[in-house]
Amino acid sequence: MQLGMIGLGRMGEGMVRRLLKAGIECVVFDMNAQKVGELAAAGAEPSGSLEEFVGKLTKPRAIWLMIPVAFVDEMIARIVPLVEPGDIIIDGGNTHYHDDIRRARELKPKGLHYVDVGVSGGVWGLERGYCQMIGGEDEIVKRLDPVFAALAPPVEAAPRTPGREAIAGSTAEHGYLHCGPTGAGHFVKMVHNGIEYGIMAAYAEGLNILRHADVGTKHHEKDAETTPLKDPTLYQYNFNLADIAEVWRRGSVIGSWLLDLTAKALLKDPDLDAFSGRVSDSGEGRWTIQAAIDEAVPAHVLTTALYARFSSRGESTYADKVTSAMRKEFGGHSEKLSAGI
Amino acid sequence: MQLGMIGLGRMGEGMVRRLLKAGIECVVFDMNAQKVGELAAAGAEPSGSLEEFVGKLTKPRAIWLMIPVAFVDEMIARIVPLVEPGDIIIDGGNTHYHDDIRRARELKPKGLHYVDVGVSGGVWGLERGYCQMIGGEDEIVKRLDPVFAALAPPVEAAPRTPGREAIAGSTAEHGYLHCGPTGAGHFVKMVHNGIEYGIMAAYAEGLNILRHADVGTKHHEKDAETTPLKDPTLYQYNFNLADIAEVWRRGSVIGSWLLDLTAKALLKDPDLDAFSGRVSDSGEGRWTIQAAIDEAVPAHVLTTALYARFSSRGESTYADKVTSAMRKEFGGHSEKLSAGI
Amino acid sequence: MQLGMIGLGRMGEGMVRRLLKAGIECVVFDMNAQKVGELAAAGAEPSGSLEEFVGKLTKPRAIWLMIPVAFVDEMIARIVPLVEPGDIIIDGGNTHYHDDIRRARELKPKGLHYVDVGVSGGVWGLERGYCQMIGGEDEIVKRLDPVFAALAPPVEAAPRTPGREAIAGSTAEHGYLHCGPTGAGHFVKMVHNGIEYGIMAAYAEGLNILRHADVGTKHHEKDAETTPLKDPTLYQYNFNLADIAEVWRRGSVIGSWLLDLTAKALLKDPDLDAFSGRVSDSGEGRWTIQAAIDEAVPAHVLTTALYARFSSRGESTYADKVTSAMRKEFGGHSEKLSAGI
Amino acid sequence: MQLGMIGLGRMGEGMVRRLLKAGIECVVFDMNAQKVGELAAAGAEPSGSLEEFVGKLTKPRAIWLMIPVAFVDEMIARIVPLVEPGDIIIDGGNTHYHDDIRRARELKPKGLHYVDVGVSGGVWGLERGYCQMIGGEDEIVKRLDPVFAALAPPVEAAPRTPGREAIAGSTAEHGYLHCGPTGAGHFVKMVHNGIEYGIMAAYAEGLNILRHADVGTKHHEKDAETTPLKDPTLYQYNFNLADIAEVWRRGSVIGSWLLDLTAKALLKDPDLDAFSGRVSDSGEGRWTIQAAIDEAVPAHVLTTALYARFSSRGESTYADKVTSAMRKEFGGHSEKLSAGI
Repeated sequence: MQLGMIGLGRMGEGMVRRLLKAGIECVVFDMNAQKVGELAAAGAEPSGSLEEFVGKLTKPRAIWLMIPVAFVDEMIARIVPLVEPGDIIIDGGNTHYHDDIRRARELKPKGLHYVDVGVSGGVWGLERGYCQMIGGEDEIVKRLDPVFAALAPPVEAAPRTPGREAIAGSTAEHGYLHCGPTGAGHFVKMVHNGIEYGIMAAYAEGLNILRHADVGTKHHEKDAETTPLKDPTLYQYNFNLADIAEVWRRGSVIGSWLLDLTAKALLKDPDLDAFSGRVSDSGEGRWTIQAAIDEAVPAHVLTTALYARFSSRGESTYADKVTSAMRKEFGGHSEKLSAGI
Repeated sequence: MQLGMIGLGRMGEGMVRRLLKAGIECVVFDMNAQKVGELAAAGAEPSGSLEEFVGKLTKPRAIWLMIPVAFVDEMIARIVPLVEPGDIIIDGGNTHYHDDIRRARELKPKGLHYVDVGVSGGVWGLERGYCQMIGGEDEIVKRLDPVFAALAPPVEAAPRTPGREAIAGSTAEHGYLHCGPTGAGHFVKMVHNGIEYGIMAAYAEGLNILRHADVGTKHHEKDAETTPLKDPTLYQYNFNLADIAEVWRRGSVIGSWLLDLTAKALLKDPDLDAFSGRVSDSGEGRWTIQAAIDEAVPAHVLTTALYARFSSRGESTYADKVTSAMRKEFGGHSEKLSAGI
Repeated sequence: MQLGMIGLGRMGEGMVRRLLKAGIECVVFDMNAQKVGELAAAGAEPSGSLEEFVGKLTKPRAIWLMIPVAFVDEMIARIVPLVEPGDIIIDGGNTHYHDDIRRARELKPKGLHYVDVGVSGGVWGLERGYCQMIGGEDEIVKRLDPVFAALAPPVEAAPRTPGREAIAGSTAEHGYLHCGPTGAGHFVKMVHNGIEYGIMAAYAEGLNILRHADVGTKHHEKDAETTPLKDPTLYQYNFNLADIAEVWRRGSVIGSWLLDLTAKALLKDPDLDAFSGRVSDSGEGRWTIQAAIDEAVPAHVLTTALYARFSSRGESTYADKVTSAMRKEFGGHSEKLSAGI
Repeated sequence: MQLGMIGLGRMGEGMVRRLLKAGIECVVFDMNAQKVGELAAAGAEPSGSLEEFVGKLTKPRAIWLMIPVAFVDEMIARIVPLVEPGDIIIDGGNTHYHDDIRRARELKPKGLHYVDVGVSGGVWGLERGYCQMIGGEDEIVKRLDPVFAALAPPVEAAPRTPGREAIAGSTAEHGYLHCGPTGAGHFVKMVHNGIEYGIMAAYAEGLNILRHADVGTKHHEKDAETTPLKDPTLYQYNFNLADIAEVWRRGSVIGSWLLDLTAKALLKDPDLDAFSGRVSDSGEGRWTIQAAIDEAVPAHVLTTALYARFSSRGESTYADKVTSAMRKEFGGHSEKLSAGI
């Protein structure tokens, strides 16, 4: 089996290295020639141009794009004139599934196949394997099976779900899944990330509550703008968050891989001074909410987790000013700029 | 009718002035002697000490406290030795109704009556009248009726609710209401303020969305940390928020007194540069949520409006740092400090 | 001034009647011939077909559509062949502003003008006047000014905002506003409705908390599946919600038109037995959230208010089942079907 | 080492069995004599009355209560007359940490020690080990170390956190942790459960969105009460949720023990027909929010997850009726009882 990979960033590079280890032949291309060189040293077939890249691929070609979502359509437009009917373009990036559906529709008359793959695993994928959620035509997805299998984590990565032994034909416990027709892969990955936002926010909020459990030791002003803390003796705790995250990793109900990473980060830097708290979002969280709304399904947690990221970037400031302005108008309240709680 | 008023701040002063206009005799006391003097000039009976204040009141005495909530118990402790069975203590401040129930229980064996009054109207009450939500014993509340009636807004302040003409005996359309036994007044006022938080946040969020409707005119970076704005041509609006708040005041579904005030504030200062967006909360919002939770009743809007205030004061920063730390661990994502959206 | 109105439902009929009273000539059309007849009796010019309708309009024609949003594109397609360059099509329905932008773009090459008007006021508009938020070309909007002015509420409908007297040229205090280019009207109306959802939910949640303030009088089971109510004596209130909504109407901070309506509804039916609690949504709330997300602006309150409607229709049931299934797996918890709180 | 255990329900029984395996001597008591007999058969020392139970314990006694939270104070009151200064009472149930602080204060003058232990692990603890979060006096907690160690999961239960090898003296990676003074154990457990609610809701919401991804295949009415689904072709997916939960278990960012259990539940019953969706809550979620509010820390996700449980039990119905009543008043909207989306 052979795969062409365009895009050798954090994710693309790791995937090529994992494929090479599994004996999949990889032809690689990236605007960064140094990256191409590094992977050539690791056994990949390098190419210096898109033309050279396409030329080195065996027909029917399988071309995997692992590039920022904003450049995918442009790249497909450059690829299309170089390839032939029967070839496959795979988008493994963080694409909105709407775009998958559009692209498959556009490529079909040209005889080109389109497969969307939602890939989870982050920078750890090279080591742990990549969880893959796949959308596309049955036969085409089946053709790529060796690639998906090589990228995926081993079945031993998690204990077997009771009852799974009786189920034949699903690759689910092998870490990759053909979820449905075009767009299904990115749809499932989108919701996966939506859930990820929610879980991250759950831990973050909980740890924040533990962090402030010493609030009874702080000074509280007695004025009309400050809520008195009824019983300060109830908030006298100085918790060791690194130890708490660690203890939850074994035997508790909230053990998870994200908790493992949190325990690691807190051990290194309990106050998280290396961070300012400005959190980016890369689209899937937003699209998940859009889907929830189109479906008329409530998604309180996933939405509020997304909004927390917006707020962390200062996007609620004008709303807060409006609230302050109203308080000034009806109650003559001036903003209290000191650190009162 | 005579009333003793302790506390001549923004609210207390306005109430005394309104009572005096209505012919209610007022004995006043405040630690600020100048305030006492000003109200004496307006016709109130001044007193220089708590003892003098109590001495000037006709028995059975009616003493209204309009002081910061943190000082109420202390003040009651000072009053108790000076008064006699049959006297009434009224708390008109932002008291948690739990404290009302406790105090009434403590004062009862001494033959003292306790009335709780939630007062809404802010600095506008002197002019508009004060909406009063009252809790306490039937007979005692009835005894104070002239005071409540004098403080309340006129029935003409709002068009009559169809069907109200047929209802006798309720003071509801006169702007004051005996809501129930001890604590009922502050319970209803507490929920009133909880609703207030929600309504304020609804306007604030909506205006924030209008404010950012020009986002399509801003530069967006194309990288893995930034969600692309799919169609910038949909966000090219520069709205005049003062005009929009104004137009909503007549004929729309969302007309309200808070909107009137918002329109006024936006007309003076459309960018709200006078405010930083740091919003205080004075307790009722928190107690409303506590009640909702004790009752097992969902209160998504009221809670999230309260949390927006906490966040406006930076209290979510550690949670945001935890989220950033997780992203760093699983995806190698560094925080993006530039203003990308 | 003359206007052609297509669609004589609740809103369209009221608008025609208000226009006629103001001396605006109205040509009307509806699939329901009886409605056409009723309005003819009120002074409108009836038409039995779209062709007749267009034929009766003076050039340049002004055609206002007041029909369900799902039929607007179809109707425009039928109108286009009948009209001429310079004619105006006005959409006054609950249109997504994206569609306004698309339609204006499509009609422009034909020399047709498109104006979008967000109309608030509901069934009360005939009496109170309609608040109108308008998007479109300056000159065209100006041409329609007599229509907007006739539909709008009188300036006396609300007290003047201090400072407004000094502002010339804005129609904002006359109840209608040209908010910006195409789509601006429906954008502002969309956010208006988003805010409306939030305000409604704030009242609804608060009243629900008051309603359950008797929870301490109910039986609580003592088992591992039920949270004990710590102090039942704190929840012994039986509130009269109709009176409470009424008392808030005068002098309080949360007075509003929606509160007026709530007081009216609660007076008629305090238990609201006429309703099941299944709440529809008609699109604007959803689009508001979509805009918030595109703008990366948090909208916790508006979103959660929308989701409450989805939940009221049973759309969270599968999620709830998932939660129950997890509890069963990790804790052996069976669902508790009795009414325990 | 010897431990007395009162309460042999799901949790208590499992703990005794795990202790016995580790060679800890256990004296047991329960109102259910059969349970006592079963554990006697497994090697525990049975007792038929509280007096007998206390009599069989070596001094200084260590008595662990594993009973419903509503009965703990009563049980302590019965134990106190039977024990002696220096004895330890351990509460391992789902206690509010406020009660821990109160009890330790009450027991101190009697020379009795109180230790609070938050135990996570559910019905799986016997097999996996119990994660324990402990609060109390240093020396007393140290004395009980063999018990905690025996109950805890093995360190091998999770891969070592990088950097942990260098840390001496913390038991965190051994699955139990002395978190701080009295109440600290239940405080941390409380927040643990708050986080648990959030994580569960994140999965539940995400799976619900996947479940409704076929909404484009359903009929949508075209009327003013129904939001049209703009592009039904985007929602044509029939996802296999059991397979999706399974595929996420390996290599993805959202792998967790709760996901393992979800995958298991969905494999058995993909439609979750065994559940109605009525979700209980047992207190910790509520107390977590109360702590967040006392600390003035936002907890959007944890709160909304709790409220989802309240709503699942019909507690939002009156609020929904209020919303319907408002819609009827301002727009003449009747509730739409058919299944329109």
